Amino acid sequence: MNKPLIALATALAVALPATAQQPQPVSSPSPGEIVAGAAAEDWVAIAPEDLVVMTLAPDAHGKPRQVVIQLIPAPFSQGWVENIRTLARAHWYDGIAVTRVQDNYVVQWGDPNGEDAAKAKALPEALRVMTEQDYAVSPPPEVVSSGALLVYQMRPSEQSPARFNGRTVFRSWPSSNFDTFIAGFPFSGFMNTHGADAWPVHCYGMVGVGRNYSPDTGTGAELYTVIGHAPRHLDRNIALVGRVVEGIEHLSSLPRGTGQLGFYESPAEHTPIVSIRVASDLPTAEQPVFQYLSTESEIFARYVEARANRRDPFFIVPARGADICNVPVPVRRVP
Amino acid sequence: MNKPLIALATALAVALPATAQQPQPVSSPSPGEIVAGAAAEDWVAIAPEDLVVMTLAPDAHGKPRQVVIQLIPAPFSQGWVENIRTLARAHWYDGIAVTRVQDNYVVQWGDPNGEDAAKAKALPEALRVMTEQDYAVSPPPEVVSSGALLVYQMRPSEQSPARFNGRTVFRSWPSSNFDTFIAGFPFSGFMNTHGADAWPVHCYGMVGVGRNYSPDTGTGAELYTVIGHAPRHLDRNIALVGRVVEGIEHLSSLPRGTGQLGFYESPAEHTPIVSIRVASDLPTAEQPVFQYLSTESEIFARYVEARANRRDPFFIVPARGADICNVPVPVRRVP
Repeated sequence: MNKPLIALATALAVALPATAQQPQPVSSPSPGEIVAGAAAEDWVAIAPEDLVVMTLAPDAHGKPRQVVIQLIPAPFSQGWVENIRTLARAHWYDGIAVTRVQDNYVVQWGDPNGEDAAKAKALPEALRVMTEQDYAVSPPPEVVSSGALLVYQMRPSEQSPARFNGRTVFRSWPSSNFDTFIAGFPFSGFMNTHGADAWPVHCYGMVGVGRNYSPDTGTGAELYTVIGHAPRHLDRNIALVGRVVEGIEHLSSLPRGTGQLGFYESPAEHTPIVSIRVASDLPTAEQPVFQYLSTESEIFARYVEARANRRDPFFIVPARGADICNVPVPVRRVP
Repeated sequence: MNKPLIALATALAVALPATAQQPQPVSSPSPGEIVAGAAAEDWVAIAPEDLVVMTLAPDAHGKPRQVVIQLIPAPFSQGWVENIRTLARAHWYDGIAVTRVQDNYVVQWGDPNGEDAAKAKALPEALRVMTEQDYAVSPPPEVVSSGALLVYQMRPSEQSPARFNGRTVFRSWPSSNFDTFIAGFPFSGFMNTHGADAWPVHCYGMVGVGRNYSPDTGTGAELYTVIGHAPRHLDRNIALVGRVVEGIEHLSSLPRGTGQLGFYESPAEHTPIVSIRVASDLPTAEQPVFQYLSTESEIFARYVEARANRRDPFFIVPARGADICNVPVPVRRVP
């Protein structure tokens, strides 16, 4: 008989009748079960001005395709984030397209004529020009000292946990490097005499700003999202401005481009983008409402621990660690 | 003007004319350029009995779709690997289907009726039954002592490199844990008094054996491949039997299933598998020929170092480390 399950079998006995015939070992709750037990106050509402709704042309079967992106909060990447709002409010994105899909790497969208100065869409005025120094930020003392720093890495249980601002901190790299979650986003950084420097990291679904050679840092007119293993070599080399919180499958399942770097070789392969809007600019009834699980909550710490040490029935050997990109921050749409 | 590039821009000036107008900083070779400079003897031929050719039904435009999988070499997972050859030679796989596509996780294929005892395809006799102990292996002394162990991890340059069997070994985890490459595959493990225990790891494109609850370990009749961030929590919990070396885009770009765990909700959504054949069983003219870059070569060590410390023109800040799944082993098809 066939064995179809590879993970998270517990919750699925309904969907997969044969599973019910299997003896289920006694076990601890799965990461999903821990999140399901979170209290209402563990969930943080995402402000409508931090949500961006991207509408793609309908698919081949006429099905609508919508992607929702959460913009990263202050103090990180705010110049680019503001540019994205400016571009959306100028309706500049309307009519651009997905021009690149590179397997195990990125999906990218922008002006298909952007490389042809004669045909490229004119950008709105007043876009902010950001520098390479803006890729990393020293969070203000209140962020660092509020206990917002939860640090967790590979093989934490084999290490001596340290304490930092009242929280358990696991370090895997020597010296002062850390991975952490701040305000619902994954970060890397290092501690220094002034506190810490931190930068967002390229996990699956994170959204970044296409750029050309240094010192160019991009405007936000060309964006990409990660659809493969975390390309951490891009950290601090490109601005990250948010992450996809709904509809990434409309991007990750697109046909791969057959040109260099996964660019499509003909415009006929492009996926047109109908519009990109800041949610707060939509009529109230059309504004999507999302929440993320507070990364400062105790329940999140339990969730991280369970991701690093799976003890739900399917698992035999806990990994005793998880890299930050294997701990996706739970996000939910509120009806 | 638009900025379309996010990586590896150097080699692409031809494809993207505007790039040629940009000043290109002096720099070191990219990982791809290092691999392009490998000598013929740095490439290792993959034996035809270690290659499996999976032919999917043509796509909606009638285009053929073929996926080539390299089976993992001895001494790892050999019972499951032999089962896969047995199933292929019995033509058991012919007519099964892709039944599950879960975003940022796995694509899975098997008997669509596998959960219905009355309709499930009968398995061939003589399939080997493997145990959970077989998920990890102690490589024989000649593998360990031949200097085949190259260990490299997150943030290596911040650490004191150690020497092991004449090779530079970087450790990020305390104690005896390591990540390494053996015979072209990524492994994790730990050193012990007898040598080392090692197991293959769930990087993008690795192929594993679906199973039900422990102590079941699966036969090889149900397989999956990773299409997202490395789910390292599955290491040592499921057998890995190989990796996709060509055509993964035919799997990773399939529509995501909308049922639980990404299973398709109706058979109409399945992608039929026409056949799965061991390459050595095909007529010689139809046998694909592949090589991988020797993971024991000096050029591979240079490639790893360059992946961990990008200095090609696009990059500003080298990461000073790379996790093993961000160092894909170069593989090429030989005409």
